[in-house]
Amino acid sequence: MSKEFDTVRVYIEKLKALESALVLFEWDLETLAPAGSVERTSKIIGALSEEYFNCLISSELSQAVYNAKASGRCSELETKILDKLEEEIDKNRRIPSKEYREFAELTSVSAAKWQEAKLSNDYDIFAPYLEKVVEFEKKFAGYVRTDEKTLYDVLLKDYEKGFDVERLDDFFDKLKKSLIPLVKNIGDVTKKIDCDFLLKSADIEKQKKFNTFLSEYLGFDFNRGVIQESEHPFTTSLHKDDVRITTHYYENNIESAIFSTIHETGHAIFEQGIGDDITMTPLEGGSCAVHESQSRMFENMIGRSKAFWMPLYEKLQAEFPGLFADVEIDKFVTAINRTQPSLIRTESDELTYSLHIIIRYEIEKELINGNLDVKKLPEIWNQKYEEYLGVKPEKYSEGILQDIHWSQGSIGYFPFYAVGNAIAAQIYAAMDKKINVEKCLEKKNIKKIREYLRENVHRYGMSKTADEFLKDITGEEFNPDYYIEYLTGKFTGLFM
Amino acid sequence: MSKEFDTVRVYIEKLKALESALVLFEWDLETLAPAGSVERTSKIIGALSEEYFNCLISSELSQAVYNAKASGRCSELETKILDKLEEEIDKNRRIPSKEYREFAELTSVSAAKWQEAKLSNDYDIFAPYLEKVVEFEKKFAGYVRTDEKTLYDVLLKDYEKGFDVERLDDFFDKLKKSLIPLVKNIGDVTKKIDCDFLLKSADIEKQKKFNTFLSEYLGFDFNRGVIQESEHPFTTSLHKDDVRITTHYYENNIESAIFSTIHETGHAIFEQGIGDDITMTPLEGGSCAVHESQSRMFENMIGRSKAFWMPLYEKLQAEFPGLFADVEIDKFVTAINRTQPSLIRTESDELTYSLHIIIRYEIEKELINGNLDVKKLPEIWNQKYEEYLGVKPEKYSEGILQDIHWSQGSIGYFPFYAVGNAIAAQIYAAMDKKINVEKCLEKKNIKKIREYLRENVHRYGMSKTADEFLKDITGEEFNPDYYIEYLTGKFTGLFM
Repeated sequence: MSKEFDTVRVYIEKLKALESALVLFEWDLETLAPAGSVERTSKIIGALSEEYFNCLISSELSQAVYNAKASGRCSELETKILDKLEEEIDKNRRIPSKEYREFAELTSVSAAKWQEAKLSNDYDIFAPYLEKVVEFEKKFAGYVRTDEKTLYDVLLKDYEKGFDVERLDDFFDKLKKSLIPLVKNIGDVTKKIDCDFLLKSADIEKQKKFNTFLSEYLGFDFNRGVIQESEHPFTTSLHKDDVRITTHYYENNIESAIFSTIHETGHAIFEQGIGDDITMTPLEGGSCAVHESQSRMFENMIGRSKAFWMPLYEKLQAEFPGLFADVEIDKFVTAINRTQPSLIRTESDELTYSLHIIIRYEIEKELINGNLDVKKLPEIWNQKYEEYLGVKPEKYSEGILQDIHWSQGSIGYFPFYAVGNAIAAQIYAAMDKKINVEKCLEKKNIKKIREYLRENVHRYGMSKTADEFLKDITGEEFNPDYYIEYLTGKFTGLFM
Repeated sequence: MSKEFDTVRVYIEKLKALESALVLFEWDLETLAPAGSVERTSKIIGALSEEYFNCLISSELSQAVYNAKASGRCSELETKILDKLEEEIDKNRRIPSKEYREFAELTSVSAAKWQEAKLSNDYDIFAPYLEKVVEFEKKFAGYVRTDEKTLYDVLLKDYEKGFDVERLDDFFDKLKKSLIPLVKNIGDVTKKIDCDFLLKSADIEKQKKFNTFLSEYLGFDFNRGVIQESEHPFTTSLHKDDVRITTHYYENNIESAIFSTIHETGHAIFEQGIGDDITMTPLEGGSCAVHESQSRMFENMIGRSKAFWMPLYEKLQAEFPGLFADVEIDKFVTAINRTQPSLIRTESDELTYSLHIIIRYEIEKELINGNLDVKKLPEIWNQKYEEYLGVKPEKYSEGILQDIHWSQGSIGYFPFYAVGNAIAAQIYAAMDKKINVEKCLEKKNIKKIREYLRENVHRYGMSKTADEFLKDITGEEFNPDYYIEYLTGKFTGLFM
């Protein structure tokens, strides 16, 4: 390591330590902290955020980064780390320190208020906080904006570079054109599918045991990670040796925990597979769409395939005979792939999922670029659900209050679930040519899949963008046709 | 608030935020973090500690404290906060920043190594870490020492002011003189007491439920606190609205969890009762002996009294009929007060407890002031247990490896459990004159006791020393005779 980079390294360590502390506080607030603690703890979070911010925008760090780059003695990876740091510095130094802190305090309170609102099905508890979050996001986007066409483009860039409104509009138009007719055609068929057995009572302790098994089967390393419970399932990470998943169990919906566990395990395997040279640097983690490509690939392309369940289905039957004893594997696979317009995104099927995303994308775009009134969101939400999916929430908790993201200040994240789906299909196709994924699944050889993904995706963390990954792995640009072909093939094969 | 104090307040906020982050990491490592995370996480802890340290010893903070004191415009409490800060600054600025950080990293690793060593009953895993901890403690004490007679005095002062080796030697001599004959006389009687029913199998889920009830009954506010499990029970706090207890459950030892829950609840009620003007300042918490006076008072003087169990015993019988259905309350109270020389401090009876402390005190004193070889500790430990208690550990985990304290760098803490016992007896006597404690217990009126203690102890946090508390509450100096009289009275009453 060059002397110049070593000077930067000291700052990186400090930033990473403060960031990890913030991650741990957020994790703790979601999973354990007592309700009455939020107000005072948000002050602590505010002070830590301010400290992080002040370190990031300090002239000493900027100088150190400049010197290191100018020295010409940094490795390729070191240069990428410096670029990433510089980008963060450039972005943040336009934001007033006081506002940065206020926003950090606000989001820790608003996430708690969201949870309270959801549990008591009362949008009014959450609305004033969401209003403030939106206000801040718009203000910050205004500060940070350089050549982006709209304010929402600024937010999008934070989650994945190269996917602006223009490109996303194209992508979603294309999706709508192929998905909506497909959903209509298949919906009539799948209505008749018997899936009542999935809604029978399943002991929660047994569910926990089975999901822990599933996660380990997929390769989650429990020596370097834990699983807990929270209202909204998520994955977080302090570093590659401490990766944390949450799940939420429902007694009468065994699918919910199974597929959210597989989803989060997909994220977690990414985090645990990050290179030793990347963890604890600003390149830790993965860009949003790439991360979601891994979780969605595990959840759907792998987790809902017959090949995956073939070696596991007997165990599932043995653990939950009340549900599955009389159900053949084909009936089970058909049922977990049934498509039906529904209210809850995280529990929706693979085919309608992106329609849930389109709804959120359209609302976010309008919230940031337009003048949507936060008070009217439930109404707009419900209208869009009727329009795209033909269903209408009867409770806020099944509608506008179902997702945690906005309460945490994550506006601009949602579209990348859908982009992630498309990237997953594209990477899967390339991987399949090399290792025959179905055969791996049938033979319980998840390791081979995991190693392909670690080698080609995970170990790089955030050192590549989605576009760069796709180019390197598939030799192609981002191409949603793979996703559309995959969905069409799978669902017509299953149901038509 | 004066302008000058306000300048200091900004630093206090930052220090508090960093300190809380460190508390949360420590809590997390003890209760949840995966084993494989320790190494990288210790680097994060090191960086946060260094940041805390650098903020504390910064010339800007010293200047701000000086200005605030010189302004003559601070309230009495603000002045106490400034004094406390100044004391911390004076002490820490003598320690090299690099060594401070190394020590923080070391203790987070060594606490994990202690746990590993205890679980696998292998002292060799822990010994090299303990050696380093002792080395650091001696070195730091040397840096910090001003007019203290010995290095160990420096460490003691950190936990409670005014209790140096000379005073503790007197105190422990006095204890030994009265306790050892009492233990001998009563031991022969209590050997014959039937307490086998306490060792019958008790369902752990039921134990959890009962202990949660007990903690709430005593006044632990679950809206501002949580209970979890860990290898070694402890209490920690982020601020008065987030106070955390751990317990450890054993299937065949229902007493263990009950009395450690009551003990930790005593600590927790203290923390939750701290004044709004004290929480999130350097006066948060309580000095060591005063804190232990509260936990030990709840555990023993209250928790092992017949008056306490009178309104609760039927519930205990109903929850655990296999253990208590045929046991009268008097037999139960006698059994939970039986005294017998034993190996484990946290489970030892009230009468022999201080002998466990004396052993640790003598070893610590010798470790720091003498030249005790860490490798020889198990041998010395066992000799002392034979000498004072007539028992000899057969496993490291029941001997030298039973306590977490030294692994965390807490050398000099142990004596204050015994001092805390004596303070508890002295405060109890004063309280009893005012509110008749037994009557309160019989009438389930724990609130009255809690309010007396909050009014006279808890709300002050660390703004008074043990000596000051005693003077204000009892009008007397520290006087261990109360403790000796209490023990003699109680145990001769019960058994002779």
